[in-house]
Amino acid sequence: MIRRQKYGDEIAKAQVLIEALPYIKKFSGKTVVIKYGGSAMLDCNLKRMVMQDIVLMKFVGLNPIVVHGGGPEINKMLERLGIESKFVNGLRVTDEATMEIVEMVLTGRINKEIVSLINELGGQAIGVSGKDGRLLKAEKDTSNGDIGYVGKIVDVNIDVITMMLEKGYIPVIAPTSFGDDGKTYNVNADTAAGKIAEALKAEKLILLTDVEGILSNINDKSSLISRMDLEHAKEFMNSGRINGGMIPKLECCIKAVENGVKRAHIIDGRLTHSLLLEIFTDEGIGTMIGKECFDDDNL
Amino acid sequence: MIRRQKYGDEIAKAQVLIEALPYIKKFSGKTVVIKYGGSAMLDCNLKRMVMQDIVLMKFVGLNPIVVHGGGPEINKMLERLGIESKFVNGLRVTDEATMEIVEMVLTGRINKEIVSLINELGGQAIGVSGKDGRLLKAEKDTSNGDIGYVGKIVDVNIDVITMMLEKGYIPVIAPTSFGDDGKTYNVNADTAAGKIAEALKAEKLILLTDVEGILSNINDKSSLISRMDLEHAKEFMNSGRINGGMIPKLECCIKAVENGVKRAHIIDGRLTHSLLLEIFTDEGIGTMIGKECFDDDNL
Amino acid sequence: MIRRQKYGDEIAKAQVLIEALPYIKKFSGKTVVIKYGGSAMLDCNLKRMVMQDIVLMKFVGLNPIVVHGGGPEINKMLERLGIESKFVNGLRVTDEATMEIVEMVLTGRINKEIVSLINELGGQAIGVSGKDGRLLKAEKDTSNGDIGYVGKIVDVNIDVITMMLEKGYIPVIAPTSFGDDGKTYNVNADTAAGKIAEALKAEKLILLTDVEGILSNINDKSSLISRMDLEHAKEFMNSGRINGGMIPKLECCIKAVENGVKRAHIIDGRLTHSLLLEIFTDEGIGTMIGKECFDDDNL
Amino acid sequence: MIRRQKYGDEIAKAQVLIEALPYIKKFSGKTVVIKYGGSAMLDCNLKRMVMQDIVLMKFVGLNPIVVHGGGPEINKMLERLGIESKFVNGLRVTDEATMEIVEMVLTGRINKEIVSLINELGGQAIGVSGKDGRLLKAEKDTSNGDIGYVGKIVDVNIDVITMMLEKGYIPVIAPTSFGDDGKTYNVNADTAAGKIAEALKAEKLILLTDVEGILSNINDKSSLISRMDLEHAKEFMNSGRINGGMIPKLECCIKAVENGVKRAHIIDGRLTHSLLLEIFTDEGIGTMIGKECFDDDNL
Amino acid sequence: MIRRQKYGDEIAKAQVLIEALPYIKKFSGKTVVIKYGGSAMLDCNLKRMVMQDIVLMKFVGLNPIVVHGGGPEINKMLERLGIESKFVNGLRVTDEATMEIVEMVLTGRINKEIVSLINELGGQAIGVSGKDGRLLKAEKDTSNGDIGYVGKIVDVNIDVITMMLEKGYIPVIAPTSFGDDGKTYNVNADTAAGKIAEALKAEKLILLTDVEGILSNINDKSSLISRMDLEHAKEFMNSGRINGGMIPKLECCIKAVENGVKRAHIIDGRLTHSLLLEIFTDEGIGTMIGKECFDDDNL
Amino acid sequence: MIRRQKYGDEIAKAQVLIEALPYIKKFSGKTVVIKYGGSAMLDCNLKRMVMQDIVLMKFVGLNPIVVHGGGPEINKMLERLGIESKFVNGLRVTDEATMEIVEMVLTGRINKEIVSLINELGGQAIGVSGKDGRLLKAEKDTSNGDIGYVGKIVDVNIDVITMMLEKGYIPVIAPTSFGDDGKTYNVNADTAAGKIAEALKAEKLILLTDVEGILSNINDKSSLISRMDLEHAKEFMNSGRINGGMIPKLECCIKAVENGVKRAHIIDGRLTHSLLLEIFTDEGIGTMIGKECFDDDNL
Repeated sequence: MIRRQKYGDEIAKAQVLIEALPYIKKFSGKTVVIKYGGSAMLDCNLKRMVMQDIVLMKFVGLNPIVVHGGGPEINKMLERLGIESKFVNGLRVTDEATMEIVEMVLTGRINKEIVSLINELGGQAIGVSGKDGRLLKAEKDTSNGDIGYVGKIVDVNIDVITMMLEKGYIPVIAPTSFGDDGKTYNVNADTAAGKIAEALKAEKLILLTDVEGILSNINDKSSLISRMDLEHAKEFMNSGRINGGMIPKLECCIKAVENGVKRAHIIDGRLTHSLLLEIFTDEGIGTMIGKECFDDDNL
Repeated sequence: MIRRQKYGDEIAKAQVLIEALPYIKKFSGKTVVIKYGGSAMLDCNLKRMVMQDIVLMKFVGLNPIVVHGGGPEINKMLERLGIESKFVNGLRVTDEATMEIVEMVLTGRINKEIVSLINELGGQAIGVSGKDGRLLKAEKDTSNGDIGYVGKIVDVNIDVITMMLEKGYIPVIAPTSFGDDGKTYNVNADTAAGKIAEALKAEKLILLTDVEGILSNINDKSSLISRMDLEHAKEFMNSGRINGGMIPKLECCIKAVENGVKRAHIIDGRLTHSLLLEIFTDEGIGTMIGKECFDDDNL
Repeated sequence: MIRRQKYGDEIAKAQVLIEALPYIKKFSGKTVVIKYGGSAMLDCNLKRMVMQDIVLMKFVGLNPIVVHGGGPEINKMLERLGIESKFVNGLRVTDEATMEIVEMVLTGRINKEIVSLINELGGQAIGVSGKDGRLLKAEKDTSNGDIGYVGKIVDVNIDVITMMLEKGYIPVIAPTSFGDDGKTYNVNADTAAGKIAEALKAEKLILLTDVEGILSNINDKSSLISRMDLEHAKEFMNSGRINGGMIPKLECCIKAVENGVKRAHIIDGRLTHSLLLEIFTDEGIGTMIGKECFDDDNL
Repeated sequence: MIRRQKYGDEIAKAQVLIEALPYIKKFSGKTVVIKYGGSAMLDCNLKRMVMQDIVLMKFVGLNPIVVHGGGPEINKMLERLGIESKFVNGLRVTDEATMEIVEMVLTGRINKEIVSLINELGGQAIGVSGKDGRLLKAEKDTSNGDIGYVGKIVDVNIDVITMMLEKGYIPVIAPTSFGDDGKTYNVNADTAAGKIAEALKAEKLILLTDVEGILSNINDKSSLISRMDLEHAKEFMNSGRINGGMIPKLECCIKAVENGVKRAHIIDGRLTHSLLLEIFTDEGIGTMIGKECFDDDNL
Repeated sequence: MIRRQKYGDEIAKAQVLIEALPYIKKFSGKTVVIKYGGSAMLDCNLKRMVMQDIVLMKFVGLNPIVVHGGGPEINKMLERLGIESKFVNGLRVTDEATMEIVEMVLTGRINKEIVSLINELGGQAIGVSGKDGRLLKAEKDTSNGDIGYVGKIVDVNIDVITMMLEKGYIPVIAPTSFGDDGKTYNVNADTAAGKIAEALKAEKLILLTDVEGILSNINDKSSLISRMDLEHAKEFMNSGRINGGMIPKLECCIKAVENGVKRAHIIDGRLTHSLLLEIFTDEGIGTMIGKECFDDDNL
Repeated sequence: MIRRQKYGDEIAKAQVLIEALPYIKKFSGKTVVIKYGGSAMLDCNLKRMVMQDIVLMKFVGLNPIVVHGGGPEINKMLERLGIESKFVNGLRVTDEATMEIVEMVLTGRINKEIVSLINELGGQAIGVSGKDGRLLKAEKDTSNGDIGYVGKIVDVNIDVITMMLEKGYIPVIAPTSFGDDGKTYNVNADTAAGKIAEALKAEKLILLTDVEGILSNINDKSSLISRMDLEHAKEFMNSGRINGGMIPKLECCIKAVENGVKRAHIIDGRLTHSLLLEIFTDEGIGTMIGKECFDDDNL
């Protein structure tokens, strides 16, 4: 066996590929729903890296599906158009004029930008919204009173997604949904990703966030909880030790796992190649929630 | 044989269905690319009727594909955002800021509105742009000098369309296209419809316009030319008797027919159910261009 | 929106097509078994119209299957051949010589005539008997004593039918059946249609008859019962208010609905386009029997 | 190796099966069109044996297709009905009344009898005529003047046949054909078999006749010609040494071979198991015509 | 009907083929696992005949699968290589050096010889071992103490077999198996054949042996038991009247039938064409074990 | 964008995966035939690494096919068995006794060892020889006189290989071939790999050797020629500057490229992960031969 000096670097790289093999084998053919949002959507370099990670996942045999939010782009456009936002209990009231802009920015700008980037990186993406092929059916969410066209998903029709996966495409989904009343509803992207993952019985739901994951001590970034089973996760939800913004995310993960998703992950989208790290390393970098046993996780 | 009085109306209706049978038979399984734009896009009733016609076409066995333009909606949004339009030789200069809005309105607003309407009427639509699945590849069109992100189509990849047709969906396509330079190009919707029809070797290309069709005497609306063969159409192009706005439309039809589309139609989108009338009646209502013989047209 | 005078008639026709759309959507891909017989088989114009209706049904997406009786043609041929008919309790005794003629006329004359007519009208029909592909297995029906080769169906093998439907053909079926004893049995066409509809779990069984439908008052043609649920239909069977000839027809419908057919219809075959009227109008023209709720019927 | 006495007979039988193996291998998956007629259609035992041979062929992997004539049954029925036959140059004038009876007997009696027998023997047959699925299109044959509804085949649509073969059925075909004029034409069964074999590019066309095959000396039954190449066969046609009734049969074989059928056979249907003998023995029992080389025939 | 003298022999042969028809029909498409070993593997003529029988079975529609042992060839090679065999309780201790030779002879010599012979006779064979495609998974069999790499099958993965059957190949399987410990285990070929038959829910498991079958009186070769139901077979196992070498064979058959194989056969491989005789004659030549009723056996 | 210290190593690894992406994309779905032999077959660690490389190739979307030689194992076994080797012009005379051992070792030992290793590493291998499914047909190679059962390939039947690839298996092929004379022929593994690559129109043929590649100066290991076009390669063949042992390897590569293989590679199997390095790095590590342009190589 020869380890010629001149190829030292290359051999080290080959070794890395070989190290990834068990993970590639494990997840080959599996479906992964990724909620894309937060900082990873704002920083140009991060954006590109996330999409590289997704294209790589596709090429090594996984089936990634991207569900994206809108974030600051929507606010910027509303502002430019002078549409004022009213708030009730900190939640934006989405009237018809606002909804129109939300849909336009989500499906006409952010969605297409993601599609462009994936295609440019060698993947094959198709961007759709929850209306296309009747993918996401919603009804008015009145849990916070009437705040307009804010919806909750009542049905997911996965036909459009499976059609695209069969043909090798990466689906990119904006969570604007249709209602039986002919109206368009805006739906939280985390929830949409969770519901889609449930409907697909996905292997993984991954929420890209702007935090490290779930911290056992909210003030100590080194207290990251790497793995939680369902019981543990539910206890934690009710413990009062969880940050407000994290509550709906953890809830979404818990529901997904309860409804058939194998693992749900909350990871730090601000970290370079966080998706690859979470999937292709033993430890992962965020918090993973699963039904019960973790002995074979990640492998 | 009984023709009971009480069923008189119903029997007359059944008779109409039976009259449509030869047309249904003739076009069963055939592909029809419809450029949707103009007044038919503005009037609420017309909009609905066009979409009803398209859904009906789908259910009786045709494969309609909708390619849409943007029109006044884009102007309105540019105006609301205070983006000024510069013009060169009457053509709008499309800088990056303008292109962003064009794409957003086309793919995020008009496209989704059409999808909603078709779905509401019982069809199954999926809306995409020329970027999705690398459907339309363009490069800068410099035939009018450098007027920014205005493109001409250099390649059509029909995989996305055929995938949707196989699964029973109605594709709704916004003609924003990708370039190899990573940029987005706006492409004329008539041309895009023509190129897509060529790539699909479609049975029909139908341009919905705001005129009756091609008039032999520009000032006499009763001088509508119902049918032209290629030679006649080309002669007419060079005759000087054709209205300026009609020139690119007729050109688009001529090219389509030269490149394998069986029939190209210029019809009056302002007319109620113009699509059905053109397809399901002998005479049709606009101008039809075909390679040569017309003896079997429409039947 | 323009409603130009000159297209008034055409637009009205287009409107009729659009009105048919909800019915076309509703029944798209559904299977309809039609018992063809009675006057609709004798009158040349009616014959043609029934077949037009069936071809139209096929082209707009339904899957019609024709089961036909023999009627007067058989009697005429028996007479020409001087074969005398003996009767027991009003039922013809079918000896071997008679059976031969019955089969010959049914499968060699009527069946092929229907096939010819459908093909001529643009459909694609294939005519078979219950022997072909072992479609209908019968055994001697002794419920009226030994009256020869009169059978009751004991097994339906739908392979031949589904093969034809998959390839776009309209099956035309003569109800002569095979027995395990190697003999040929004649089976009542209504019953055969019912059994075939059951085996296919058809959407509809439609019996073309020479009456308006079920009348609540046998002497009043205006007393037509449009819709009956199973309970109502059974009550009516035992009420004594039902005409003798209608008893087996109603019984056949009841059994079909009990065994999985969604709706069974008794309609007046003497009426022009009765099939289309029953399927493509709200009210229908005859009597429809269904398991229970009728709120969504026809739509 | 033991050859125990008690199994002597069985071992001899096994040996026969093994001897058949090379032929089974050679023809596995190949299509064989059999014209069934003559004495083999009249004698009860022969009938059964021919059908046994056909069922066996199917089970050992060949694809037999049966095309049948009508023969004496038609004459008998015409006689019973008192329909007189006029003759022109020895050819029966087929008026409309006659044609009706011809079709009825062919498709309603003989066709179904063959189907019954094959099914009884364990095969799966479906009987159709040239009208079903537009299998055989004919036009008036005026080569002998106007003798009524006698047709020549102008088009064969093999879709119905290939559909049945794919599903494992044995097609049984009556050669009554449709014309574009909506009329039914009677076509010679030998010719129909030949045309079908050509359209299918069949491995074999086999005509069951009432003679030994082609005799080099018309008066000497021991002068049977076992094999002829095309050139030889054509020479013989023009030699004047061929029997009148044999001329159209030999002509039919020559055309079939010219048009892509690999081998055409004229065999003696009066001989027990003639079909098996012709296919599964080296020498065969009748006359075989092929394009050229015979060295590998039968193996 | 003619029985011409000159074709007497041929007709007799055709008759034999016809006699085989009911058996061919009965077993068409059915799977038969054949354990090939013993004398039938040593005698050159027998070898060839067994393979002819198997090729014939394939061509007439059965799906034969060959599982083979090694026998004397292994001993010869061990001897040539001077590898001494130790025995414990009459069982050979299979150390690593021995296992290597066993695998080499089984998969590299005997397996390939069978493949050659089948191919030469016109079949299409592919030879694999229990390691290929993870077909047979074994673990150490310690029921006789530690005698080395002797395994018992714990899992059968039929994917490789069904893949080959779908493409028309005859699988030839050497029973060397893989263990989760990365080791190779030798497995008894009878047992392997039984397990494979179970996993395939085969129609038949046939063990080729060097005896007549099960004898009711061990000293009387005329006391062959032709058919046993499960109860009878189990009683017999415990009766003490069974020969030692036959015990594992009968046990293997009982288990197979208990686990879903329809019939298990112990036949005399020394007899010419024993496979064909067992399958294609009424009486068969060995002992057949089935769950219960035998009335329809073989037919 | 965060590059947290603690994940430094992981991120570097992710980066390596991303760097491999263009290569993975480029070769996705492509077929690569690997001749496995030489030192890479002897050293335990190298063996394992080559197989890891192959399994990784499979999982990231390539279709690797392994063709192996025998080498020292065959000599060892011949020696153990005391079979003396005669040589003519330095070539071993392969008599029948020798051939038996060659086949046994190749297909029964080396082939199965490779299968075991691939399976253990998570791949799914099936090992066959050139006899299985009639994969490789050879005839006696007399170019060096009669030296026994040494063959040259005259036909490759890729059905077995494509069947395995379709089902996700890695084919492992021993080059022992069948002759029409029923004999087994030993074929050079390089040649076999080349012929198989030609028949598959493979993307790549890779010969694992014990040298660096083609050296322009036979005495200077730093004079490795990285890329050659066909013309260059042929010139070099005739230049006299090429080492004797390399001549047949270069010849094999030239023929493969002439016959449709896109690239042929001669690489150093002694080098750790040489396969991955050659495929997944820009420069590669050995010599690559292609038809002409190299501008896009490797990318």
